[in-house]
Amino acid sequence: MDRERFDKLGEECGVFGVYDFDGNDVASTIYYGLFALQHRGQESCGIAVSDTNGPKGQVASKKGMGLCNEVFTQESLGELKGDIGVGHVRYSTAGQSCPENAQPLVLNYVKGTLGLAHNGNLINALELRHELEYSGAIFQTTIDSEVIAYHIARERVNTHSVEDAVAKAIRKVKGAYSLVVMSPRKLIGARDPYGFKPLCIGKRDNAYILASETCALDTVGAEFVRDVEPGEIVTITKDGIQSDCSMCLPKGEAARCVFEYIYFARPDSCIDGVSVYESRLKAGKYLAVDSPVEADVVVGVPESGNAAALGYSLESGIPYGTAFVKNTYVGRTFIKPKQSSRESSVQVKLNVLKESVKGKRVIMIDDSIVRGTTSDRIVSMLRDAGASEVHVRISSPPFLWPCYFGTDVPAREQLIAYNRSIDEICDIIGADSLGYLRTERLDELSEGLPICRGCFTGTYPIEPPKENIRGDYDK
Amino acid sequence: MDRERFDKLGEECGVFGVYDFDGNDVASTIYYGLFALQHRGQESCGIAVSDTNGPKGQVASKKGMGLCNEVFTQESLGELKGDIGVGHVRYSTAGQSCPENAQPLVLNYVKGTLGLAHNGNLINALELRHELEYSGAIFQTTIDSEVIAYHIARERVNTHSVEDAVAKAIRKVKGAYSLVVMSPRKLIGARDPYGFKPLCIGKRDNAYILASETCALDTVGAEFVRDVEPGEIVTITKDGIQSDCSMCLPKGEAARCVFEYIYFARPDSCIDGVSVYESRLKAGKYLAVDSPVEADVVVGVPESGNAAALGYSLESGIPYGTAFVKNTYVGRTFIKPKQSSRESSVQVKLNVLKESVKGKRVIMIDDSIVRGTTSDRIVSMLRDAGASEVHVRISSPPFLWPCYFGTDVPAREQLIAYNRSIDEICDIIGADSLGYLRTERLDELSEGLPICRGCFTGTYPIEPPKENIRGDYDK
Amino acid sequence: MDRERFDKLGEECGVFGVYDFDGNDVASTIYYGLFALQHRGQESCGIAVSDTNGPKGQVASKKGMGLCNEVFTQESLGELKGDIGVGHVRYSTAGQSCPENAQPLVLNYVKGTLGLAHNGNLINALELRHELEYSGAIFQTTIDSEVIAYHIARERVNTHSVEDAVAKAIRKVKGAYSLVVMSPRKLIGARDPYGFKPLCIGKRDNAYILASETCALDTVGAEFVRDVEPGEIVTITKDGIQSDCSMCLPKGEAARCVFEYIYFARPDSCIDGVSVYESRLKAGKYLAVDSPVEADVVVGVPESGNAAALGYSLESGIPYGTAFVKNTYVGRTFIKPKQSSRESSVQVKLNVLKESVKGKRVIMIDDSIVRGTTSDRIVSMLRDAGASEVHVRISSPPFLWPCYFGTDVPAREQLIAYNRSIDEICDIIGADSLGYLRTERLDELSEGLPICRGCFTGTYPIEPPKENIRGDYDK
Amino acid sequence: MDRERFDKLGEECGVFGVYDFDGNDVASTIYYGLFALQHRGQESCGIAVSDTNGPKGQVASKKGMGLCNEVFTQESLGELKGDIGVGHVRYSTAGQSCPENAQPLVLNYVKGTLGLAHNGNLINALELRHELEYSGAIFQTTIDSEVIAYHIARERVNTHSVEDAVAKAIRKVKGAYSLVVMSPRKLIGARDPYGFKPLCIGKRDNAYILASETCALDTVGAEFVRDVEPGEIVTITKDGIQSDCSMCLPKGEAARCVFEYIYFARPDSCIDGVSVYESRLKAGKYLAVDSPVEADVVVGVPESGNAAALGYSLESGIPYGTAFVKNTYVGRTFIKPKQSSRESSVQVKLNVLKESVKGKRVIMIDDSIVRGTTSDRIVSMLRDAGASEVHVRISSPPFLWPCYFGTDVPAREQLIAYNRSIDEICDIIGADSLGYLRTERLDELSEGLPICRGCFTGTYPIEPPKENIRGDYDK
Repeated sequence: MDRERFDKLGEECGVFGVYDFDGNDVASTIYYGLFALQHRGQESCGIAVSDTNGPKGQVASKKGMGLCNEVFTQESLGELKGDIGVGHVRYSTAGQSCPENAQPLVLNYVKGTLGLAHNGNLINALELRHELEYSGAIFQTTIDSEVIAYHIARERVNTHSVEDAVAKAIRKVKGAYSLVVMSPRKLIGARDPYGFKPLCIGKRDNAYILASETCALDTVGAEFVRDVEPGEIVTITKDGIQSDCSMCLPKGEAARCVFEYIYFARPDSCIDGVSVYESRLKAGKYLAVDSPVEADVVVGVPESGNAAALGYSLESGIPYGTAFVKNTYVGRTFIKPKQSSRESSVQVKLNVLKESVKGKRVIMIDDSIVRGTTSDRIVSMLRDAGASEVHVRISSPPFLWPCYFGTDVPAREQLIAYNRSIDEICDIIGADSLGYLRTERLDELSEGLPICRGCFTGTYPIEPPKENIRGDYDK
Repeated sequence: MDRERFDKLGEECGVFGVYDFDGNDVASTIYYGLFALQHRGQESCGIAVSDTNGPKGQVASKKGMGLCNEVFTQESLGELKGDIGVGHVRYSTAGQSCPENAQPLVLNYVKGTLGLAHNGNLINALELRHELEYSGAIFQTTIDSEVIAYHIARERVNTHSVEDAVAKAIRKVKGAYSLVVMSPRKLIGARDPYGFKPLCIGKRDNAYILASETCALDTVGAEFVRDVEPGEIVTITKDGIQSDCSMCLPKGEAARCVFEYIYFARPDSCIDGVSVYESRLKAGKYLAVDSPVEADVVVGVPESGNAAALGYSLESGIPYGTAFVKNTYVGRTFIKPKQSSRESSVQVKLNVLKESVKGKRVIMIDDSIVRGTTSDRIVSMLRDAGASEVHVRISSPPFLWPCYFGTDVPAREQLIAYNRSIDEICDIIGADSLGYLRTERLDELSEGLPICRGCFTGTYPIEPPKENIRGDYDK
Repeated sequence: MDRERFDKLGEECGVFGVYDFDGNDVASTIYYGLFALQHRGQESCGIAVSDTNGPKGQVASKKGMGLCNEVFTQESLGELKGDIGVGHVRYSTAGQSCPENAQPLVLNYVKGTLGLAHNGNLINALELRHELEYSGAIFQTTIDSEVIAYHIARERVNTHSVEDAVAKAIRKVKGAYSLVVMSPRKLIGARDPYGFKPLCIGKRDNAYILASETCALDTVGAEFVRDVEPGEIVTITKDGIQSDCSMCLPKGEAARCVFEYIYFARPDSCIDGVSVYESRLKAGKYLAVDSPVEADVVVGVPESGNAAALGYSLESGIPYGTAFVKNTYVGRTFIKPKQSSRESSVQVKLNVLKESVKGKRVIMIDDSIVRGTTSDRIVSMLRDAGASEVHVRISSPPFLWPCYFGTDVPAREQLIAYNRSIDEICDIIGADSLGYLRTERLDELSEGLPICRGCFTGTYPIEPPKENIRGDYDK
Repeated sequence: MDRERFDKLGEECGVFGVYDFDGNDVASTIYYGLFALQHRGQESCGIAVSDTNGPKGQVASKKGMGLCNEVFTQESLGELKGDIGVGHVRYSTAGQSCPENAQPLVLNYVKGTLGLAHNGNLINALELRHELEYSGAIFQTTIDSEVIAYHIARERVNTHSVEDAVAKAIRKVKGAYSLVVMSPRKLIGARDPYGFKPLCIGKRDNAYILASETCALDTVGAEFVRDVEPGEIVTITKDGIQSDCSMCLPKGEAARCVFEYIYFARPDSCIDGVSVYESRLKAGKYLAVDSPVEADVVVGVPESGNAAALGYSLESGIPYGTAFVKNTYVGRTFIKPKQSSRESSVQVKLNVLKESVKGKRVIMIDDSIVRGTTSDRIVSMLRDAGASEVHVRISSPPFLWPCYFGTDVPAREQLIAYNRSIDEICDIIGADSLGYLRTERLDELSEGLPICRGCFTGTYPIEPPKENIRGDYDK
């Protein structure tokens, strides 16, 4: 279903950068790129651009709370003049939801101006922040990106180039990050050694692009060049792309976030060579193989459940159907009237096509169950519409552990799978049967790419942070 | 695809009314109802409510340009106190797009206050307007609804009840209308004798509801009672529903707008006993029967093409697939940057799932072709993604004539089907083959309900208006 | 002091109209003119323009709640193309404060489009409204102007010109009105026979202007031509100004609102040949003659009290001083925080210059006392700042009766002068002495022009309306 | 006249801080205080508050472009919970006009959170900024305050208290500053050793207040306690006020900005024991003594010229008069329509009272002449209104040199007094005679307090900065 805070996983951010060697303004391209990445964050967005031929490091930027459509106007885009730029869409996990925390971060440092857009969560951000504070640093936001920026600025004092400073800085940070950095004359992309978050390179005419997902390249009419490798730093200048792979781990040690495939990424994106759409189709197929059930129709909970439903149908031979109509006008800014009203938010967003399910045995595929409150409601809606049986299949394993790398998960006690058997969950959501994707299937789903399975198993590629301890403050 | 002004048909409006006999505030229910009808009009919206136990005819209203989400806030909804009310979402066909023209129309007349929400187009509005002006009337909007309101007010002077005044008034108007009227103590619904536009009755607890589509009843948790009959006037008071069928034509003479089934209505709605979803499935099946072609996959252009694609697949046995990802964030307020940019709006809104179509013979189903510019672009996108063949099937007959009853159609010369053979159209949009729904299938599609086929044949149930002639003005 | 609703009189409106025979756009001139008239109404404002060479009677308009600065933007002004236009600033007395009631009223009638801006209050508006309703009229606002517009539209059906229709229409209305009407090719000004409200004619190059006050002519760089006479209708066309004086009363029977001189109008305006500033100076002089007192300094309550204070000083020889600093940033949109706070609104708006009053016997001149709550506060502030004596002089007689002609007066029981002697009032506001302008002085103040003294004496030039009786409404 | 950027001097900022020992919320008091200081900056404003009993250093803040009325709403003020807080109004001199640069600056540092509001200009800000950047600092604004904040943060690492860190930090900065700093449990005020900018202490019940001007104390109903001394740091805690005077210079070496008395401060304020109003009166008296002329009336250009005009009148015996009416609705957001229009901005803002000047010899007093364009216009307006002679007197000496301490002065070549004799200036503005305040009078005006006269003489209390040289940036 749709990306709500209350009963779905939350993703952190989308990043986008362009450097046009022909000197064309890039703000509108970034704007379109952010549109394509809007599903990765609807809380705030921003664009910062610079003119590589103008005064060193003068940056024009515009940030704000809301969707791209709400933050940018023709006028404000027209004022963003520059041939190099970065953009960002944000869903807050670390750092409060407030205007100050919108990205890209724009700052002056020893060598001019930096623009920085960041997707991911650091696990040692607090530690690093304290270290920096103890040496006299000041922080004006509560986002991890400011910690990274600080380290880049400090390293830059004693290094020969900004890319070296970036390289030294990110050696200090631990966690998940896909980073796009704009210096006065360079566009830099970096991805953490585990490759938790995606980042790819595109090209259009004489311009290079960095983007969280390939769908953004398609949208702006750019060609896909390649993915930035886990651990790689790419530096884009008029002389081309330079690559620094000194931080790359051996291939098998990466740990991509599997939820990018299952739920976060747009199905028309391709991450590290694996089609998101295909991987969802496959998840459906595996479910058909591993959790078969006799039924009349297989339907997906829109949008992300649809591909898995199609996969299930193709594998099982049970006809694919459409059971839900989603109201796409119910967006981020949906206002719940204060008047006590009987209308539930699920009902406002989803309605059942009675004709599709009446008198039928229905297999309903969703990508995950978090708290279970929505699933409960949807199963009821199918039954009310006349479904004789409702079999729920989930295209991911049960969610059991916290994520430290950028996915917004409720407290463990609120997870429906915590301390419960699958039968118990099935009872709670009122289904006739329930099946999850088997954890073993995850590797096949990502075509053998190593993935992080921390949220299913509690075993993480990097040791998670200890309890937060903060120093003694002025009283 | 989505409802854009430039290359799609435009629908006029959605109406919603409630009368809660228990005295509960109805504004939030209207708000939710308008949400469910938002697809019928995104230009402006409004709510007017009244307290049937308060001073006679005191109305609180709020109207504005934009979506429900944009016009209403918790605060403004909270100020709309009343147990009877009407709401409206608008897409302008007649009357300019401006705040003055937003509905519901709220007015004082001899017996207090009226609230009026109207869906449809009158063909004698200009004539009636002139007549009224020649007897000293003043008009503050350019919408047809004001003409209807005037006639109700004039008739009310010499009638015993508001419903009689409504009945007399609508005898004078010709054309398409589904009307919801709120008087100080009555909620009235009326539908023109041809039943061009839908209108239905629902009930929740002790409240009656009138709505353009049944999906709005589902959304607010109301039960469907029945459709208002073409030509019927229903008057809802604490004593129940009274029906006046004196204007109803013999059953076979109605002329419902077939595009409600094909494209306008939400698939989860049911109009005059016919499921919109089912009729779209059927359209796909007829296309499979009448315009068969060998292929590997059949895909729909979202959203409205999907059901027809599923129908085609079910009938033909060719697998159903998903070929497009639609960016739902690109809404009404999408800003096109002034910077000349290479990004096309189609590309920003739709992307192709390469995996679904690469190397495949694709059947692509859309609901209609208006100018053909979008179809052209989408066919190219499929080919660029590697489709080996692209066969286009359209779930309606060729569009050839203007609509006088509320559908926004471009000038005839801009219609791709005007003066062109199907082969010529096929060439223009670059498809390997092209098939339209046969006109004969329309009756089957609506399960025998009589429909208007003016836009396909040029023969209309009511004679269309003559040239506009306006009198001599003050100079 | 400043124009607050709670403890000051409220004025109704300002009107402005232009017709530029050279075909230049007039919207910006109207905008500047409304700025100059902003003191007459801060609640809403609007501009409507038309192109006399374009299609007959096509009007572009923009209205909204708030000050000119808030309602208009460069963009919205740029869209108002036309060489004839009317503008309005509003302070609501009759009719609620809501967007629908903003003026100018723009309407279509038998001969095209009318724009209408109105200052004043009709006393038979309700009666006329009922009459119209009983003949089938509908009303979309609650302002008197709609009643006038209706009558113009009805009369126009059987008259030869719009000015004749205006003439016939205003014969039916009773009360105060200064009216500017724009028809497709004519600009018409009308003033009620008593001349309650001001209206004057100006000229700039080849353009004629109608405005509530001469200060608006100065602001737009126009020359004063003459006042519109009480009872006169002027019609401005390319052929010049035509005058219809058939409704004019004998000179001595007019009844100008004396508060225009005392408080409403800007001091730099001149109404019917009498300088507002001079009349305020004179009021001060009369107070010095009629209510002398020994003192060290005479000060005015800003802004309107200053001129009278100067007059008192000139007459008495007691030095003029400045005792108050007014915070001009505290405007219409001043937000009172909900947090219970000790700050009073008077204190936020006014501060005392201690140096000016410390140890001194102060004469403080204000234009009127309504409820007395502000006067009370200001006297205290002077004492707190060290004034040894505070003598209050009011440049108008005691306010005792309601106004039916456009001035917003609280209920009679709330007037401090109601049922109280001057000594009692003096006690309540805590002054050492109190003096009002003698009623006999009013004629001298207006240089012999006949004035309305209804609010002081209860005797009105036109008989005030009876109790409101409204008909039986639909139930 | 009013505070426009183009032809008037610009002031930098106003600061306000409160600590309420009884734990009451202080946001509304800060809001009222900023209102009273709004004349010091209309570009942006902000409030930051903290709860001294809550989690250490958690700060709620709201900043934005515009006036207090525009930035704050009841809702946003209600969300600012805390018993200690700082506020700021800004007029940008150093640092661009953009949301990022709005104050107070809120930041996290080693000991929690700091809020910082600053009035004044540092002359070594760029130098300090470079030094900090070379040690790895990052800057997110372009305001001097961030430099001060950085130094406080760095010093805090090795000091025992925040006030010691402030003391060490401001030893490094050179220039003009009045500073209010909020730490988790302390409110600190600091004023540079020359005392360029004012800062005073007030008390209301159990709350202490710091404010730029005493008029803000009056507005919130607080008592004046004393001024912060030039060079003094005051630390306000529950234990009372602690003072650190170690940076204070010998009394005679301070250098207050004389324009605070002449023009910037509100007349009802008292700075370092000298009444602003009295000093303006005196300036007028000196002009009467030093530049006498025979005339019929003496008038001030509002607002700041009025007090000097009264002084001139009292000294000379020439009657005081009012010649101008100012339109106070023409505020910061005045929109100039793009349509080429004949209306000048001076005319829109000021109108002449013809009655006051017609046929008279007028002495017109203004506070300063910057470029001379406005003076030129006003003199013409007086002549057009019939003044037979216009004698201009300026209540400050000729403006000849730049200001490095916070006053916004145009480039030297644009100053009318640059390279011109007084007779030449008189000719340019079209006056019959022109007189400036003699420089020797400045000391008397400030009652002997040492003042800065750099802008008149080019000799400054601190050596002004050299040319800006910026390091080599990343390319």
